[in-house]
Amino acid sequence: MNNDLILLGHGSGGRLSHQLLDDLIIPIVSGTAPAGQNDAALLDPVAGQLAYTTDSFVVDPIFFPGGTIGSLAVHGTVNDLAMMGARPLWLSMGLILEEGFSKADLKVILEDMRQAADAAGVRIVTGDTKVVPRGKADKIFITTSGLGVVEHSFSIHGANAQAGDAIIINGTIGDHGIAVMADREGLKVSTTIRSDSAALNGLVAEIIAEAGEQLHVLRDPTRGGVATTIKEIAGQSAVSITLVEEDLPVDPAVRGVCSILGLDPLFVANEGKLLAFVAAEAAERVLARIRRHPLGEKAAIIGQVTAGEPGRVRMETAIGGIRAVEMLAGEQLPRIC
Amino acid sequence: MNNDLILLGHGSGGRLSHQLLDDLIIPIVSGTAPAGQNDAALLDPVAGQLAYTTDSFVVDPIFFPGGTIGSLAVHGTVNDLAMMGARPLWLSMGLILEEGFSKADLKVILEDMRQAADAAGVRIVTGDTKVVPRGKADKIFITTSGLGVVEHSFSIHGANAQAGDAIIINGTIGDHGIAVMADREGLKVSTTIRSDSAALNGLVAEIIAEAGEQLHVLRDPTRGGVATTIKEIAGQSAVSITLVEEDLPVDPAVRGVCSILGLDPLFVANEGKLLAFVAAEAAERVLARIRRHPLGEKAAIIGQVTAGEPGRVRMETAIGGIRAVEMLAGEQLPRIC
Repeated sequence: MNNDLILLGHGSGGRLSHQLLDDLIIPIVSGTAPAGQNDAALLDPVAGQLAYTTDSFVVDPIFFPGGTIGSLAVHGTVNDLAMMGARPLWLSMGLILEEGFSKADLKVILEDMRQAADAAGVRIVTGDTKVVPRGKADKIFITTSGLGVVEHSFSIHGANAQAGDAIIINGTIGDHGIAVMADREGLKVSTTIRSDSAALNGLVAEIIAEAGEQLHVLRDPTRGGVATTIKEIAGQSAVSITLVEEDLPVDPAVRGVCSILGLDPLFVANEGKLLAFVAAEAAERVLARIRRHPLGEKAAIIGQVTAGEPGRVRMETAIGGIRAVEMLAGEQLPRIC
Repeated sequence: MNNDLILLGHGSGGRLSHQLLDDLIIPIVSGTAPAGQNDAALLDPVAGQLAYTTDSFVVDPIFFPGGTIGSLAVHGTVNDLAMMGARPLWLSMGLILEEGFSKADLKVILEDMRQAADAAGVRIVTGDTKVVPRGKADKIFITTSGLGVVEHSFSIHGANAQAGDAIIINGTIGDHGIAVMADREGLKVSTTIRSDSAALNGLVAEIIAEAGEQLHVLRDPTRGGVATTIKEIAGQSAVSITLVEEDLPVDPAVRGVCSILGLDPLFVANEGKLLAFVAAEAAERVLARIRRHPLGEKAAIIGQVTAGEPGRVRMETAIGGIRAVEMLAGEQLPRIC
């Protein structure tokens, strides 16, 4: 037996499982002694409405410029809680490992998860590990779930966009998808492009503090990109939305790779971006506050909500035309998250 | 495009993802209209300590006598909450699908999840679906997490076993592992063997009602079987444990397959069994109550806790000897759950 590799026995629930937990997973992820493992974690009572979410992560490659599958799994779930206006508190972690996966790589991924969790102020409190035979999974898949608490009384959700709302994004679009894609394809052009993977809960707290109930919708444009997310919200809120192409922040290198690959950055995944729908009168104030945050320096107002046909999204193009925006059709970039 | 199969685009986050959610996943799993999907579910405040757990399920085959990967994923997570004495309330569901997986099979699995959730009195409130290219996963993996509430003031956990405690199991051991294994291997001998996969929260409520604070530990002997679970608890509680081989309930057909395959049922996985550590004076009363429950007809007292060497587990064998019981070493039955 090679001591550097994950074996089927590490998923048996028996002695090897306990060793992996005690020697590697628990010390890194929880930062506490491995004593007292139970079937579930017990958590202090929470005053307020709970937010609860889950996401599975299958990104390929598992290490990419700007992150790993581990930090991505933490950021993604923290962000889904933050998008409901909740304060993220606790995460769970389900690992599915391929037999023969490198323990050293697992260690790096777990350390990255822990660091991301610490930075976001959340704790990974419960987990599970399964191992499948070689060829039955690809290296490592991670499913995180998350729990948070809603500490304000107003409502932030996808059906709450209102005519007149300004739509703010906190920076450039498409960075995550293009960073992963360029790395996977070995494109040399891409050396400056990094995933934007980041926990947005700190920024959301700033936005809520500034906007209060003038904040109507928050959503992170991950798979499917800004186009798909905007289209979703237009449908849920039964409003029209107009985007202004010239106002969309796009990194020049990302734009370059997109044009080589024939991709529209509007459909490319982000992992550290949010769309905030804010009442018009608060928009400039909120934009200024976002720009003062490290994750919001390139924030911009990219469009607005109108009272037109429910679910319609249009874009004012750079050359002065108007085009319809639809959801991503088919699959542009498999295993992007 | 074949409309009967899962495509990469069903994991894109775009139009196909929305169709799969709206047409299949959400109506079956949640039983509600697909309107108003958000990044996280909002849940009513809960009075009391929360229990939180997660498990990934990679069982092969995905359909087996007595269950599917879907019901197993619900039962496993419900049971982990119940083993902390918590009342299970909500589940999350993360699906990882292989490109080309059958939509009809997915439908059966989701219906089985829903039925299991309804029977256990829990709701699946949030989920995620990813699709990986053909050959990068094996059909379907499901990661559930669960949330429950602890409604009593005494402590039920693995470090709470006390000298003198009787150890009760609610029925025969090894049924799940052998049902899956026999089905996978196509053993004809196995036609009567079914997985014991079941939600144990109802039975746990009965045990708590009967035993109160005389109930010290609850744990479900899943991967690694009764031997591994008992050994874990002996270590956590720093006690000795003696099991009595003759008192272990084993189905004759399971015993037969075990002897053919050279397996000890003590190490084989269960998915509808619990071990209850109960103060001696309450043991017969609790046993009688368990036996009145449909999931406890074959319940038995299988051993007791003593004040000997911390972590030591011994078995009084059927032929009158004593042998040491250790955790499962290596991997007996890969992908058993």
